[in-house]
Amino acid sequence: MERNLKILEDFLKIPTISAQNKGLKEARDFLTSILRELNFEVRVFPKEEVIFASTRDNSSQSKKTLLFYNHYDVQPPEPLSQWQSEPFQPVVKDGRIIARGVADNKGDLIVRLLAVKELLQEAQGKLPCKVKFILDGQEEIGSPNLEKFARAHPKLLEADGCIWEGGSRTSEGRLTLELGYKGILSVELVVKTAKNEMHSSYGGIAPNAAWRLTSALSSLRDTRGRILIKGFYDNVKKRDKEAKELLKKLPTSWRVELKEAGVRKSFFPSSNTQSKKRLYFSPEINIDGITSGYQGKGHKTILPPEAQAKIDFRLVPNQKPEEILRKLKVHFKKKGFNELKILSRSGYPAGQTSPKHPYVKLISRVVKEVSGKEPILYPNSPGSSPQYLFSSRMPCVGIGIGHPKARVHGANENVLLKDLIQGVRIIKEIITAFK
Amino acid sequence: MERNLKILEDFLKIPTISAQNKGLKEARDFLTSILRELNFEVRVFPKEEVIFASTRDNSSQSKKTLLFYNHYDVQPPEPLSQWQSEPFQPVVKDGRIIARGVADNKGDLIVRLLAVKELLQEAQGKLPCKVKFILDGQEEIGSPNLEKFARAHPKLLEADGCIWEGGSRTSEGRLTLELGYKGILSVELVVKTAKNEMHSSYGGIAPNAAWRLTSALSSLRDTRGRILIKGFYDNVKKRDKEAKELLKKLPTSWRVELKEAGVRKSFFPSSNTQSKKRLYFSPEINIDGITSGYQGKGHKTILPPEAQAKIDFRLVPNQKPEEILRKLKVHFKKKGFNELKILSRSGYPAGQTSPKHPYVKLISRVVKEVSGKEPILYPNSPGSSPQYLFSSRMPCVGIGIGHPKARVHGANENVLLKDLIQGVRIIKEIITAFK
Repeated sequence: MERNLKILEDFLKIPTISAQNKGLKEARDFLTSILRELNFEVRVFPKEEVIFASTRDNSSQSKKTLLFYNHYDVQPPEPLSQWQSEPFQPVVKDGRIIARGVADNKGDLIVRLLAVKELLQEAQGKLPCKVKFILDGQEEIGSPNLEKFARAHPKLLEADGCIWEGGSRTSEGRLTLELGYKGILSVELVVKTAKNEMHSSYGGIAPNAAWRLTSALSSLRDTRGRILIKGFYDNVKKRDKEAKELLKKLPTSWRVELKEAGVRKSFFPSSNTQSKKRLYFSPEINIDGITSGYQGKGHKTILPPEAQAKIDFRLVPNQKPEEILRKLKVHFKKKGFNELKILSRSGYPAGQTSPKHPYVKLISRVVKEVSGKEPILYPNSPGSSPQYLFSSRMPCVGIGIGHPKARVHGANENVLLKDLIQGVRIIKEIITAFK
Repeated sequence: MERNLKILEDFLKIPTISAQNKGLKEARDFLTSILRELNFEVRVFPKEEVIFASTRDNSSQSKKTLLFYNHYDVQPPEPLSQWQSEPFQPVVKDGRIIARGVADNKGDLIVRLLAVKELLQEAQGKLPCKVKFILDGQEEIGSPNLEKFARAHPKLLEADGCIWEGGSRTSEGRLTLELGYKGILSVELVVKTAKNEMHSSYGGIAPNAAWRLTSALSSLRDTRGRILIKGFYDNVKKRDKEAKELLKKLPTSWRVELKEAGVRKSFFPSSNTQSKKRLYFSPEINIDGITSGYQGKGHKTILPPEAQAKIDFRLVPNQKPEEILRKLKVHFKKKGFNELKILSRSGYPAGQTSPKHPYVKLISRVVKEVSGKEPILYPNSPGSSPQYLFSSRMPCVGIGIGHPKARVHGANENVLLKDLIQGVRIIKEIITAFK
């Protein structure tokens, strides 16, 4: 394992921050070199920030194809002050690896490469089935080019089943299999009311961009989170019986994550039923950040001429990002926020795989065999992923090395070493069983 | 004038940013040295950040005392990118001096010192009346120690009339005399919902400090600016007939300032009557800055665990800052914002001088004689100043070298050289007439 850990550590040291267009070329070089060593046919699409890799025709025992989707970009590590170690200097401590991206999604990517490597070594260079990798370098900024890639190269996406980028496990070690992902629409809102700051004594007659933005944001939802954009819920697909049954059985594992993040007790949700619905089946709107005016020490009494917010919508099946964006624009116009501009939109719709599919049963069986525990089927993940591009063509299951205290997207992101080792075994068995 | 300009320039080079506790000692040394050269008795109160200076008993022709209040601190210069020159490197260009603090309030302070200097030179070291200076180093952060100073040293504040820190003129050169100032209450709001960031996919069940703060701020006023804190308007003093008459006559000069700040046309107020009321007679609430979550490039989909806002209230006669603060706390508690904390409050009440006072008539007459134009009496300034400490003891009039494009508190703050020269003449004539 130690030599393998070295590969993961080297990968984690590359600060692949897609939001800042950093480290991506270096990561492409790193990954293509490993894939070529494994005798994969590799094609790099730098413009779409995608790496495609496939086993050669003569190096698999069956013609069936298993496709792995992963991403090599990570979220920005800020705020740095909350990290106990450098985010891009992986640290092994108390049985875990701590680094930005180790849980989302570099750990899983390396686990899958290692599984392939071991299988090749064990079977003289032949895999049980054909394997493809589609590695995305822009997942954390909404995969803006993946759809274009999929449209331009439909042949590359052809496969019989897909293992999606990640998954988690409960604190009791039951793995989660994710059968669907929410869609997303990320937008930046900019309010510009003037060119320069004014003295705040003019507050009664001059505009204040911070007030305008605050009002604009408040107009988007009520205090309980119901979204007030006209027609926002129009196309939301009703969930079928199977999905609802699975939902009921899901554990309330989020309490661990809320606790881990130090959420104030008063904010813990009171109803589990309601929380499950919100988390897995409901579209949501979220503020990721706001900035306006004076933020330094002490007071500066001014009217900010500009205010910005980054927001994201989590979408459910049948909601189209471009339609939501249009409705958002209509909303602001109708409310009179003509000075508000929407910048840097990105997003994709939700994706789903039926829990009844034989592929889902096969993966469940393998997971149970290796881990000794029945996995938990999630009809949907709370997270977003451009899975729709794949799940519209083949069954897709998300499985990975995450755990409830992994702090995905947060400071001190981590995975457990034992989950890494188990992860490699599970992927090996899936590839073997799939043939 | 050139040598005198040098004094002003040297003063402007000291970055006296009280909000950051910068440059204040240097400014105290600078000012006390000038005042001692002018044969003033000087007392420095470093803890209260106040300089007191008074003519000696034998150096005035009359026993009547004129008190000047000025401040030597300035607003922070940020955002620096909007400045055409360095804020603390004064530049003379097109007949104006550009530097942070030149209009508010360092220019006026130096004008008054120069007027005293010239009078002393012209009359062999004797001034027509006794002169006192109270120089405040914390005006821009709400003069948190001035009240304590005034209480501890009531004798030092004894005088027959007071010239307040500043004033402006219309674009036609009519000087404005300010007879009252709004009070102020500045507070910092901090919302903490968790210790760490969470992935924004938890938005449906986990708290978001940015949403909480946005809701809290929105609960404070309606979209037209009416403040929704219970009892906020309870004690607002009705204005008397004289003040109302003066208000009617006031020019709508704010249009120049709105234009100067590049305010979007759609935000120009439509009603002049309504605007006058808001600007001069109404209490207001203002957001000075907001900060929360991710503000870097691109997107980071997180739930911010913390959000902060700096706000200020502009108060009118009879509103007490401590009472408003109490009502604000009750408001947030009643609305359920228990996680919201109020930090770093500071403030003082409004102050007023009657337009009928003979002192006001004297100042008006002198201004008309020197400038050739009838001044405009402002029953109230839109701005705040701790004038109540003085106007409760003697008549107070604000007069200064400001102009409509002075950009007070903003980037490229400036005064006109010709207004500086006229300013010295006016102050000399006021001191002379006051005896």
